Amino acid sequence: MNKDITNRDVDFAQWYTDVCQKADLVDYSSVKGSMIIRPLGYAIWEEMVKVLDQKFKETNHENVQMPMFIPESLLNKEKEHVKGFAPEVAWVTYGGNEKLDERLCIRPTSEVLFCEHFKKIIKSYRDLPLLYNQWCTIVRWEKTTRPFLRSREILWQEGHTMHTTEEEARKETLQMLDIYKKFQEEYLAIPVITGKKTNKEKFAGAEETYTIEAMMYDGYALQNGTSHYFGTHFTKAFDILFLNKDNILEYPYQTSWGVTTRMIGGLIMVHSDDNGLVLPPKIAPWKVIIIPIGNVDEPLKELENTLKENNITYKVDLSNKTPGFKFAEAEVKGYPLRIELGERDFKNKEVTIVRRDTLEKIKVSFKDTLDTILKLLKQMQTDMFNKALERRNKMIYSVNTYEELKDVAQKKAGFIKINWCGSEECENKIKDDTTMKTRCLIEDEEVDNCCVVCGKKAITKVYIGKQY
Amino acid sequence: MNKDITNRDVDFAQWYTDVCQKADLVDYSSVKGSMIIRPLGYAIWEEMVKVLDQKFKETNHENVQMPMFIPESLLNKEKEHVKGFAPEVAWVTYGGNEKLDERLCIRPTSEVLFCEHFKKIIKSYRDLPLLYNQWCTIVRWEKTTRPFLRSREILWQEGHTMHTTEEEARKETLQMLDIYKKFQEEYLAIPVITGKKTNKEKFAGAEETYTIEAMMYDGYALQNGTSHYFGTHFTKAFDILFLNKDNILEYPYQTSWGVTTRMIGGLIMVHSDDNGLVLPPKIAPWKVIIIPIGNVDEPLKELENTLKENNITYKVDLSNKTPGFKFAEAEVKGYPLRIELGERDFKNKEVTIVRRDTLEKIKVSFKDTLDTILKLLKQMQTDMFNKALERRNKMIYSVNTYEELKDVAQKKAGFIKINWCGSEECENKIKDDTTMKTRCLIEDEEVDNCCVVCGKKAITKVYIGKQY
Repeated sequence: MNKDITNRDVDFAQWYTDVCQKADLVDYSSVKGSMIIRPLGYAIWEEMVKVLDQKFKETNHENVQMPMFIPESLLNKEKEHVKGFAPEVAWVTYGGNEKLDERLCIRPTSEVLFCEHFKKIIKSYRDLPLLYNQWCTIVRWEKTTRPFLRSREILWQEGHTMHTTEEEARKETLQMLDIYKKFQEEYLAIPVITGKKTNKEKFAGAEETYTIEAMMYDGYALQNGTSHYFGTHFTKAFDILFLNKDNILEYPYQTSWGVTTRMIGGLIMVHSDDNGLVLPPKIAPWKVIIIPIGNVDEPLKELENTLKENNITYKVDLSNKTPGFKFAEAEVKGYPLRIELGERDFKNKEVTIVRRDTLEKIKVSFKDTLDTILKLLKQMQTDMFNKALERRNKMIYSVNTYEELKDVAQKKAGFIKINWCGSEECENKIKDDTTMKTRCLIEDEEVDNCCVVCGKKAITKVYIGKQY
Repeated sequence: MNKDITNRDVDFAQWYTDVCQKADLVDYSSVKGSMIIRPLGYAIWEEMVKVLDQKFKETNHENVQMPMFIPESLLNKEKEHVKGFAPEVAWVTYGGNEKLDERLCIRPTSEVLFCEHFKKIIKSYRDLPLLYNQWCTIVRWEKTTRPFLRSREILWQEGHTMHTTEEEARKETLQMLDIYKKFQEEYLAIPVITGKKTNKEKFAGAEETYTIEAMMYDGYALQNGTSHYFGTHFTKAFDILFLNKDNILEYPYQTSWGVTTRMIGGLIMVHSDDNGLVLPPKIAPWKVIIIPIGNVDEPLKELENTLKENNITYKVDLSNKTPGFKFAEAEVKGYPLRIELGERDFKNKEVTIVRRDTLEKIKVSFKDTLDTILKLLKQMQTDMFNKALERRNKMIYSVNTYEELKDVAQKKAGFIKINWCGSEECENKIKDDTTMKTRCLIEDEEVDNCCVVCGKKAITKVYIGKQY
């Protein structure tokens, strides 16, 4: 246990802040609500970007860059959209010393900018589909902020696509949801639940919003990505039309989808512990840290060469701190494997490898180092996912009465599965009584009781949970 | 010649705009002064980022992300700096419906943000050097804007480093200048002149600014990157101190350096022609475009496999346009090599390869396609650089009298080399009389005459030129 890090089971919020700071992921600045992402935090983001960007390109998406400003009149074009976002945008009113004729908001999301551009470049079905993505920063003027989870500036990607048919657009929405799900499960080792948001919880302007819901160590939900089907809401508002194959003008069908640096917050709150950060090997920028102890120049060189040849990223701690201090620092920063390369051990042709997730110490003969590293990295990735999955599954509850719901909501952390009539009234009542919100509809389970709130006929099952 | 593109020698400004638009690099939006970077434009930027980011990391720099906002009081901390930037920043005054207590500018550059962070994290010489870089967007409220060259939003990278000694910081400044120079010459095929800016032209707050100066086809200069040595200007203003090895508090020495999407403008204005974009192979996102004509499924598949195996990026134009139309489009978009894979040619086991820079058509036997592609890509890269170098060198003039200077400035396009006394008065006079500004000091040539303006003793030679 790291003495600078609050115990996770005692004060989860403080523990989270401690890990963010002690692992040198972020720093605060004099700009309220905006964080500084430090080298390790940004390197994790770069790994995420690398994998996702490749997946987007493999599925024929192209990157573009839109302006960061939206004129007020443009934001106002789609009514639901502006209602959802206007209260939380930052407004630019001066350029240099001159007051602007029209104020500009900094994009909270870029639907209206993409629509304006699409209107200019879409003429016929031959121009479709348009499969665009952009990596950028958005701004939402949040009142309370926390590193990675909720900040005024957010690094993210936003995909925006246009299609000739509803079917194709719906397929795109689900394809991107699936890419997010696989990425989070395979790379971040975070088991996720995906499904449709209720009408109340969907994106301002969307016809349907699909969400990625992850459960944190404390049982709270983190909405860790969304994929929206817009239908023709925006294309009608912007009067975007294309000539179809029969030479008839039609509105195209639209999607958008995004994930953010919030995923780093999710990584921390699912995997990290009282010693600091724990990173799944597949997303860790450096898989291995080598800590040489004593005179080990020769085996160090050999080990480095082996790692380089096998494209295993690593760092070497050559500082003049004590081994104990270096071990603790390697732990707090979450290197998946720590290799203690000691002079004495090496005389016996051995090295010690320590797994970050279990802190298990493994002594292996020097010649088996590479094989062991490869095996452990793979094992660790699987183990971390399974551990998170098992914990999450234990924290999903079913209830049959509203009393039971309130009782579980009060006494236990986690998600609750309920039968629901579909009314916003019942949704609101749950929120007022328990602070729990609906996470997403459950599509693969049949309704098996009345609505847990009003007792009327249920139309679907739904997950509810407290959220970040 | 592409009929939609203005003749380059008739109206260079219009030609430039035409190329930007016809090659689908950019689009305009309703946000004045902000451009939309379309897929091809952004793909070129991604190639630049990829190469530079790797060079930064090889030289031990780490990426971070600072807030995009700067509180007014923070911007005001270094006097020269705020004087230089305050007139051209965008101000955020409202967050949602609430007026902010202190207005925030959107970063025009991030020195003050880095300094504030450095002050918190630098304690001792053990924390140094700090070698940081960030990729981000900056905003400068320009009055007149042109795609890539001058816009209100700019994509760029900014390096910010801190060192224990002046010597080390100066070395860093020159190292990064050299990385920029090599990148622009080797990848962009743009010959550049590097050197120190005069006091008048240096960065607001810098002790010395080194610049990368490229000459465009029309003889105008493009400042295509800068590397600054700050000394302790900012560290004193921000009271940043470190304990040196003798346990004495000292101010660290600082640098910053940056390049922007302006480099794309430089690429266009150096290499492109009346048929559209011409891209040096090493920076072209796709090296080859294949245009199949007739039934060539089998050789097309073979060719694609060969290209894939050899990591040569390519596109295939499978649209139902005419071959002539496809050829013109391949030219306007600047694919270095166009492969015309025709049914008739293939019966003779031949293909036609067209070089974009010379438009030379080369018929080769199908089995030699790969070798020819590799050879041509290499040749084209060298030829493009040499052609640009030769043109530039022919457009650098030496003058001995002020009359001659004014005459050359009026009649010829290009740079002029002059002897200069070092006074801002003479510098201003040249600007008033000719609109030419000093580009940079010439360090490798001896003074060989009096100051061309005032006739007093010259202390250095300097390049002057009109600029973008």
